Amino acid sequence: MNYFSSNFKLGILGGGQLGKMLLSETRKFDIQTYVLDPSDEAPCKIACNKFFQGSLMDFETVYNFGKQVDVLTFEIELVNLDALEKLENEGVKVFPSPKTLKLIQNKGIQKEFYEANGIPTANFKKFASKKELLIEFIETKLPLPFVWKCTEFGYDGNGVKIVRSATDIENLPDVECIAEEIIPFKNELAVIVVRNVSGEIKTYPVVEMEFHPEANQVEYVICPARIDNKVAQKAQEVALKVSEKFNHVGLLAVEMFQTVTDEILVNEVAPRPHNSGHHTIEASYTSQFENHLRAILNLPLGNCDSKVAGIMVNLVGEEGFSGQVIYENIEKIMAIDGVTPHIYGKRETRPFRKMGHVTIVNENMDEARKVAEEVKNSIRVIS
Amino acid sequence: MNYFSSNFKLGILGGGQLGKMLLSETRKFDIQTYVLDPSDEAPCKIACNKFFQGSLMDFETVYNFGKQVDVLTFEIELVNLDALEKLENEGVKVFPSPKTLKLIQNKGIQKEFYEANGIPTANFKKFASKKELLIEFIETKLPLPFVWKCTEFGYDGNGVKIVRSATDIENLPDVECIAEEIIPFKNELAVIVVRNVSGEIKTYPVVEMEFHPEANQVEYVICPARIDNKVAQKAQEVALKVSEKFNHVGLLAVEMFQTVTDEILVNEVAPRPHNSGHHTIEASYTSQFENHLRAILNLPLGNCDSKVAGIMVNLVGEEGFSGQVIYENIEKIMAIDGVTPHIYGKRETRPFRKMGHVTIVNENMDEARKVAEEVKNSIRVIS
Repeated sequence: MNYFSSNFKLGILGGGQLGKMLLSETRKFDIQTYVLDPSDEAPCKIACNKFFQGSLMDFETVYNFGKQVDVLTFEIELVNLDALEKLENEGVKVFPSPKTLKLIQNKGIQKEFYEANGIPTANFKKFASKKELLIEFIETKLPLPFVWKCTEFGYDGNGVKIVRSATDIENLPDVECIAEEIIPFKNELAVIVVRNVSGEIKTYPVVEMEFHPEANQVEYVICPARIDNKVAQKAQEVALKVSEKFNHVGLLAVEMFQTVTDEILVNEVAPRPHNSGHHTIEASYTSQFENHLRAILNLPLGNCDSKVAGIMVNLVGEEGFSGQVIYENIEKIMAIDGVTPHIYGKRETRPFRKMGHVTIVNENMDEARKVAEEVKNSIRVIS
Repeated sequence: MNYFSSNFKLGILGGGQLGKMLLSETRKFDIQTYVLDPSDEAPCKIACNKFFQGSLMDFETVYNFGKQVDVLTFEIELVNLDALEKLENEGVKVFPSPKTLKLIQNKGIQKEFYEANGIPTANFKKFASKKELLIEFIETKLPLPFVWKCTEFGYDGNGVKIVRSATDIENLPDVECIAEEIIPFKNELAVIVVRNVSGEIKTYPVVEMEFHPEANQVEYVICPARIDNKVAQKAQEVALKVSEKFNHVGLLAVEMFQTVTDEILVNEVAPRPHNSGHHTIEASYTSQFENHLRAILNLPLGNCDSKVAGIMVNLVGEEGFSGQVIYENIEKIMAIDGVTPHIYGKRETRPFRKMGHVTIVNENMDEARKVAEEVKNSIRVIS
C-alpha cells in the first residue's frame, strides 16, 4: 500500500487535541486525512484534508464518513460501535478494531475481560443500576469506602467517585456501574504499548503520574518513572500481556497501580494516543502519535526509547475563569531551556478544561522535575 | 502581545516545504496563519488558517496579502521587496526586514556587504552583463577556473557554474553576475543563527555538508560537524558577526568554507529556515522552525543544543523519473531505529526535485553515519 502523497485516505473519528497531534504526523508523511467531529471549532478543523461536522454517536453519520476512507481510527472511545462493525464487515479497515473497542468502552466488560484473561486488577462487582448497588450495600454490607465507576461514558474523572457513606450512594446517578476495592498504592503508573497489524509490538518506558487532588486530572507525567527496575519490568510485561490478549492494533495506554507490596494491578486502558504519552513528542525517538499511525497502517514501528528525561504538565483552565483564554506567563516559561508548550486551540477556557500541555525535557531528571514545578507555578490558564 | 489562540495573524510568503514545517509549529502554539503561494498544490495549502493563491513577485498581490496580517515573514527570498517596504512603512511588522532582504537577495550586493563589514569571504568581481565579464576575461586575463554566479534568482545550484574555458563563458546567460575565486576547502560548513526582535541571539551547532556532485544539492547534513573545536568556535563567531551586522531578525543560515588552512570564509546566507537545519526537528531541543517563530514574534529563544547526533539526507527525484511519486523502500528505512522520513507533499516527482528528507538520529555519531548511508542506498524517489 502506498500511503505517501497518494490517494490513500485515513479517517479519524474525533477532532480534539489527540487528533490534532496525530495530524501533525500525517502532515509529516503527507498522508491524506478526513476528520469527523461534532464541533465546528474542533482543534482538527485545519491540518486535515477534509473536515466533516457531525455526531460521533450517530450511526448514519459515522457510517457515511467511514465509507469514504481506506483506514479508520479514532481519538475518542465514545463512537458508534455498530457503524464501525458494519464498516469493518464491508471491508474498511478499522483500527483499533470494533471488537476490542467493545471490550474497552464498557468498564464492566473491561474488568471482566481482565478477570477472564488472568490480568491482575482490583476486585470489583458490577451492578445494572443504582438500586442493585444499594441492595448489595444493605444486604451484604459492601465495605466502605469503595470506588464507584459508571461503566459507560465516563472520562477524565467524570463517572468516578470515592463512596464513603450511604448518602454518597444515594447521590450517585442511576446507571450501570461497578464498585471497586480501593487499592493502597505507592504509585500510579502507565505504559503505552504499540502493536501493528502484523503483530510487531513495543512498549514505551513506564511513566509515573500525579493527579490533581480535586479535578482528578493528571498534573505531572514523569518519564521514566522513578521506580525500581524490577517493578518497571513487571509493569511492561503486564502491559504487553494486556495488548496481546486484546489482540490490539494501534496504541494502548495501560494505566496501573503499583501497590504497597509492589504488585502491579491494571486500572484501565485507553485504545488511542493518551495524555500519559504526550511527553514522547519531545522526549522519545518516535512520538506516540507517529507510532499510532505506523501501527494502524502496518508500517514498521519506531523506536520507543527516550532521548532525554521528559515531564508533562497539563494546562487546565483555572477555577473561576471562563471565556476567551489567556495563557498568563507563557513567555516566562518559554525562556527556560527544554520547555515546550502545546496549545490545543480551544478559544474558550473553563474550570478544569484541558487547554494544552507543557513538556519539559532535560538530560537530568532532577533538573527536569525542578523546571516542571517552576512551569506549573508560573503558567495560568485564565480569561 | 497575545499570540496563542488569539486573533493575531502571521503571514507567510511562500507555501513550500519550509512553510509547511513552520506551520507544524504554528499549529503547536495555535497561532493563526495566512499563506500566499502561486501554486494551488502548495504543500502549505492545508494546516494554515487561510491560503491565498497568487504571485510572490507581484506588488499588488503581496501588498494586499500583507495588509491582512500582524507579522509577515517569508520562506523564500524571491518576493516583491517594494511591497514589503511599503507594508513595513505602514506598520506591518516584516521579519526578516526588507532592508536585510535587499542586502541578501542580490548576491553581488551580499558579497559587497561582507567586504564592507570585514566578514571573511572569497575574492570576487561583479559584472553588469555577460559582455562585461567577457571583456574582463579577455583584457585582464581573469584566471580560470572561477565560480560564476548570477546575482539574482538563483537557488539550489541553479545560477552557479564552474567556468573552465572561454566556451563556458559564451554558454552563460546574459545577466548580472559575479566571478568568484575557487576556494580549495576541507569542508563546507553551515551555522544557523537565530536572533529575536529584542536582539537575543543563539547559534545552532556547526554542521558539515556534502553535496551531490552533479545536482549541486546537499546530500548529507551532519550535526555536529566532525571538525576541530577551535574551527567550530571560529565558524560560530563568524556566523554571529554576520547576523549582527545584518541586524537580522529570524533565522539566518550561514554557509561557509573551511579552507585548507582552517580559515572560515562565508559563502552565502539564507534569511529563513534552511535545508542545513532540518535535522533540528528530531535532534535539537528546539527545531529551527520553532526558533524562527519565536524570533519573529519576539518570544524568548529556545535551546539550540542537540539531544543526540543528527544526519539529514535529502530525498530528491531520481534521474529518469517524472510523474506521480513513489517512495521506493520507505518502509524498509522506517524499520531502522532513529529514522524519520519527511514527505513534503509534492505529487509529481522529476529529476533532482526536492521531494522530502530523512532524518537519522542516534546517540552515537558513527552509528548515525552508517545508518544514513543505508538510508541513502535504500530509498529511491521514482514514479
